[in-house]
Amino acid sequence: MVRSRALYFDGHELRLIDDHVVERGGEALIRVGLAGICGTDLQILRGYASFRGVPGHEFVGRVVESDRSDLVGARVVGEINAACGRCDMCAVGLRRHCRNRTVLGIKGRDGVFAEYVRLPVENLHRVPDSVEDERAVFTEPLAAAFEILEQVHVDPSWRTCVVGDGRLANLIAQVLRDRVWKLKVIGRHQRKIGLLRELGIEAVEGVEPGDESSYDLVVEATGRAEGLSLALRLVRPRGHLVLKSTIASEYRIDLAKVVVDELHVVGSRCGPFRPALSALSSGSIDVRRLVDGVYGLEEFRDAFAAASSRGTLKVLLRP
Amino acid sequence: MVRSRALYFDGHELRLIDDHVVERGGEALIRVGLAGICGTDLQILRGYASFRGVPGHEFVGRVVESDRSDLVGARVVGEINAACGRCDMCAVGLRRHCRNRTVLGIKGRDGVFAEYVRLPVENLHRVPDSVEDERAVFTEPLAAAFEILEQVHVDPSWRTCVVGDGRLANLIAQVLRDRVWKLKVIGRHQRKIGLLRELGIEAVEGVEPGDESSYDLVVEATGRAEGLSLALRLVRPRGHLVLKSTIASEYRIDLAKVVVDELHVVGSRCGPFRPALSALSSGSIDVRRLVDGVYGLEEFRDAFAAASSRGTLKVLLRP
Repeated sequence: MVRSRALYFDGHELRLIDDHVVERGGEALIRVGLAGICGTDLQILRGYASFRGVPGHEFVGRVVESDRSDLVGARVVGEINAACGRCDMCAVGLRRHCRNRTVLGIKGRDGVFAEYVRLPVENLHRVPDSVEDERAVFTEPLAAAFEILEQVHVDPSWRTCVVGDGRLANLIAQVLRDRVWKLKVIGRHQRKIGLLRELGIEAVEGVEPGDESSYDLVVEATGRAEGLSLALRLVRPRGHLVLKSTIASEYRIDLAKVVVDELHVVGSRCGPFRPALSALSSGSIDVRRLVDGVYGLEEFRDAFAAASSRGTLKVLLRP
Repeated sequence: MVRSRALYFDGHELRLIDDHVVERGGEALIRVGLAGICGTDLQILRGYASFRGVPGHEFVGRVVESDRSDLVGARVVGEINAACGRCDMCAVGLRRHCRNRTVLGIKGRDGVFAEYVRLPVENLHRVPDSVEDERAVFTEPLAAAFEILEQVHVDPSWRTCVVGDGRLANLIAQVLRDRVWKLKVIGRHQRKIGLLRELGIEAVEGVEPGDESSYDLVVEATGRAEGLSLALRLVRPRGHLVLKSTIASEYRIDLAKVVVDELHVVGSRCGPFRPALSALSSGSIDVRRLVDGVYGLEEFRDAFAAASSRGTLKVLLRP
């Protein structure tokens, strides 16, 4: 058991507390090195998932206590879904969909906006020495981008479009760039569009003539309800639409289009850590340019304000 | 050119007219034998697709004129999408999704609630002698049921649920009964549920304990917006949801469930005629019990009233 400084959300406001108790309870105890603020965290502060406790699920850290002695001292990242290992989903290998799961900083389990956090050892992945903390902290969102390739058999010939230019959209575009020949990102912010172009990705502001109903694969990653309407318009008949935004509330969707054009719509959430770590290690994915600032825990108000502002990509906390 | 009695929809009301002109224009001219009233027809009379003209797309008839002399006199059913043969969808074999298509009784093409109708010869399928008109008229909706198997690779081990007990839901259940080991229909009407049970299909009224989030495949075929909410609740994480209802207007859907549970949602519309005709010919699908009445064109008001009433399955017109 340790006492930890932590950001605590009580359902109304986020506060910095000094004496948050972290019991290891058979899991690994990790000293958090860096943590990333994600769109889901911002939604949690608006009530998403009715979460109470310490939010945050993107991190890199160092194991300080564990029953697995070989892990102590190791630099690790961690999968966010802690599975029961006994339900029907776990039985078929879908541990990320465990019926009884807790989810780091999202559901029934304190997260990483704290000095210390606990996680089951089976959730941990060692970070290669070549991947410094500032890049390793992107493993979780990058895994979420790789999830698309696990769910949809993306053919290299597919005309592909990513709707959105934010932090997750950028990672998705980088993953898809290495998979398909024709990729376009439709964004809204000149700076973010410019960053994508620097990465060699075609990126434009808004829909162009010829875009309508023309893409074999469209990924909606705006985090905004309007993004879905746009994404729907872009998919060709019998095409694929991947939904990456957990838009919190119910949303109006024109089902006639989905049915008449026989679209394949796939929801997509957490993904596999291994290809993400490989891509970070090989340098095929560039995440350094996405970091807009690093804040201490005591500066959390500034950090969240920055993360919420339109022009920002990734904001990190160093607890 | 012939003059034909026909039901004409002017955007406000459906009327019986005596002098509807049918120009063959290089297509086959068909004397309609029987026509079926479908949920889409009822929606058209409420404004769906802004259709003006003669509605109706389910039929069996006899070719009376055609450039293909071997077809004259043949008893036929017809695919409802007339394709251009030149667009990108046609080029990849997706003629039912032709960019420039007209659709029988739905879009830019008069339908079958008339003595005569025209269709391109490539849309026609000869009906085997063993399949009488009262069964052949079900080819089109049965093809729509078979479409599910063309879009989703249904594994026989999948726990499968059809939501709805109407005419289309019944056909879908019969198609899936021959494909999966565990099938349940969740309906609302005792008589329709009883009919499904007579066909050897497990059918119940409403959700039972254990149904929630448990099915590998759920088919929504109620034609009602509430059906979608129910269907969504039933799909297991990473499961498949097939949408068969062209619910006319926009509808609120809880996208968080689709994303968090990583569902595969597939819209499904028109289907392949060959397996439908084969199944009717072999007798593996029983459609005779679905017919609730056969009406002449002049009785169309009674026919549509019957088709719209809750307890009815299929109503036929004999022009």
